[in-house]
Amino acid sequence: MNKAVLLLSGGLDSATTFAIAKEQGFAVYALSIDYGQRHRVELERATQIAHRLGAVEYRTVKLDLRCLGGSALTDDISVPKGRTADEMDHGIPVTYVPARNTLLLGLALAFAESIGAFDIFFGANVLDYSGYPDCRPEFLEAFERLANLATKAGVEGTGRFRVHAPLLKLTKAEIIREGTRLGVDYSMTLSCYDPDQLGQPCGQCDSCQLRKKGFAEAGLADPAQIAES
Amino acid sequence: MNKAVLLLSGGLDSATTFAIAKEQGFAVYALSIDYGQRHRVELERATQIAHRLGAVEYRTVKLDLRCLGGSALTDDISVPKGRTADEMDHGIPVTYVPARNTLLLGLALAFAESIGAFDIFFGANVLDYSGYPDCRPEFLEAFERLANLATKAGVEGTGRFRVHAPLLKLTKAEIIREGTRLGVDYSMTLSCYDPDQLGQPCGQCDSCQLRKKGFAEAGLADPAQIAES
Repeated sequence: MNKAVLLLSGGLDSATTFAIAKEQGFAVYALSIDYGQRHRVELERATQIAHRLGAVEYRTVKLDLRCLGGSALTDDISVPKGRTADEMDHGIPVTYVPARNTLLLGLALAFAESIGAFDIFFGANVLDYSGYPDCRPEFLEAFERLANLATKAGVEGTGRFRVHAPLLKLTKAEIIREGTRLGVDYSMTLSCYDPDQLGQPCGQCDSCQLRKKGFAEAGLADPAQIAES
Repeated sequence: MNKAVLLLSGGLDSATTFAIAKEQGFAVYALSIDYGQRHRVELERATQIAHRLGAVEYRTVKLDLRCLGGSALTDDISVPKGRTADEMDHGIPVTYVPARNTLLLGLALAFAESIGAFDIFFGANVLDYSGYPDCRPEFLEAFERLANLATKAGVEGTGRFRVHAPLLKLTKAEIIREGTRLGVDYSMTLSCYDPDQLGQPCGQCDSCQLRKKGFAEAGLADPAQIAES
């Protein structure tokens, strides 16, 4: 079985990506990043998902981005609530974290190289991407190119790094249908940017709204919402 | 004055790069990364250099790479000592840290974006690079390309990120001559991969050997070595 590194956030997309990597026959080494996010309960969910979906190894790396500033996800800027679909489609929101995906993929690359893996799975998504520049296909291609220049494995030609983003062009509804087919238990996942301390989603941030819309379009009930309704 | 982010390690190269950025008229925002390196006294030197050379701001980001493993600089693998120039010229040494420069530049990019800077100074060097893949010009070009795809600023077209590596093609002797011309006090700098707790260099690792050779070729005395001799 080939090893793959999976970036695991605790959200719906990365849990689905985990199931896809497993279906493709990879032994999954999951990696979460504790980057000082406000929604820290996310990391507890990631741990649950790693165990339930059967990660060969699960590691968490601490990277304190708060000291660099610049985002509502790490600073004391308010997370925007109740934005319309049109507002979400325009511009980059304050929840953008400067260079975040470059750093997440960089850490995944470091982990991959240290365990001899060449495949990195990442739940990036371009349609529901809420304006983040580092979720676009051209970004992922540029990172893959970089990975093969940046590493010992790339230079010695022992393998070629590949960034797999199987959700890249799927709608949230398509992601949910695919995960459901693969048996992902979405009650474990948390999508909210601003949950309370018990992990209850706010229901109003961009991420909550996209999730709600996705389940509605997929014609499925969100198992994480049952307690709420 | 344009702002620039400088990656500052406490070594000779990044101190020289600092002086070059200042000479080019940049307001320097220095950034050090505490990545769990064994040679932690390096970070104390970085702080001294930031103050002495007049950083507008100086920040240290913690990023614990030890949990990812794979390098003599962060693990309990021995730092190689007394290698010949020929041995250093071949292959990638165990002091290589997987994806390190991708991560360092990623953090510099995050800092740059959050303060509105577009220039990143990095003391990478290809001639004395001791076989590290992520010190090569093609790596730096690929990173610059990535930076302009990865960021809000890149997408919105408010500026273009540039990675400056002014030492890239200089020999260690040329670097030392340039820094000496610019008034860099090399007694503050530490190059050793395995110093003692007082910050005394081992004199035998690749980095110590390259430094010694550099000062000899430049026809200058190393002020950091005076205490030793």
